[in-house]
Amino acid sequence: MRAIQELYPVDFAHCFGCGISNSSGHQLKSYAQDQEVIAHFTPSPQHMSVPGFVYGGLLASLVDCHAMATAAASEIQNNIAPRFVTAALRVDYLKPTPLGPVLEIRGHVTERSPKKAVVALTVTAEGIVTVRAEVVAVRIPKTMEILGG
Amino acid sequence: MRAIQELYPVDFAHCFGCGISNSSGHQLKSYAQDQEVIAHFTPSPQHMSVPGFVYGGLLASLVDCHAMATAAASEIQNNIAPRFVTAALRVDYLKPTPLGPVLEIRGHVTERSPKKAVVALTVTAEGIVTVRAEVVAVRIPKTMEILGG
Repeated sequence: MRAIQELYPVDFAHCFGCGISNSSGHQLKSYAQDQEVIAHFTPSPQHMSVPGFVYGGLLASLVDCHAMATAAASEIQNNIAPRFVTAALRVDYLKPTPLGPVLEIRGHVTERSPKKAVVALTVTAEGIVTVRAEVVAVRIPKTMEILGG
Repeated sequence: MRAIQELYPVDFAHCFGCGISNSSGHQLKSYAQDQEVIAHFTPSPQHMSVPGFVYGGLLASLVDCHAMATAAASEIQNNIAPRFVTAALRVDYLKPTPLGPVLEIRGHVTERSPKKAVVALTVTAEGIVTVRAEVVAVRIPKTMEILGG
């Protein structure tokens, strides 16, 4: 199964968080599974906040990219996933996230309109939900397509 | 003038976003100025979302670390800044942020209790506010000090 990020148009595959063409980036890969979208990611040792725990900015980044993939998942046509961008990001850090274990990120759409989707997400480490998030995704505006198109 | 991040205890100076000891990280530096805390940061070319624009996850990361510094700014004693961690992050992307110009991040505390501070922030590029954020910072819990202490 191909990741949703592998189905973005090539001009929009440079994202630092999930672009398959960004060799310096995180290259998050999200997969549709039933009504959810799921990704796994193992942070690197340098991705710490304080020793032993994952940097909150990385967690926000993972949630952000995964939400765009979740918004796109049900609108894939002809093996092309539409590119969404983030309008608003809300992340609640419920517990410190341990650095070391693989993280599981899950998302599902809670609201949908033609141009917008609201996505609810969790990050889980070793079976414990450490982060809850809600992200508003909008279809990429024409003003952002000028340089990429 | 020293940056607030230069005043964190050495055990807590490894943060990917702002730790002076994290050579792989962003090393954001925030400075108190009157009632505000200000940082400047120039994203690298690879920090893109789509070509021409800054990755939202990076913007969330900058806001996150800058908020912790803003929470600490008024509580520095004997050249040591207390370490806060993020409880909640809310980021509104008002406009796409152009990739290239130096960004200015400004924060100020809007609510304060002994263990908590709420920080309001903006990110500005070329004189235009592109991001507004609100971050809840809490003093680092004892459970996160075990490995760092």
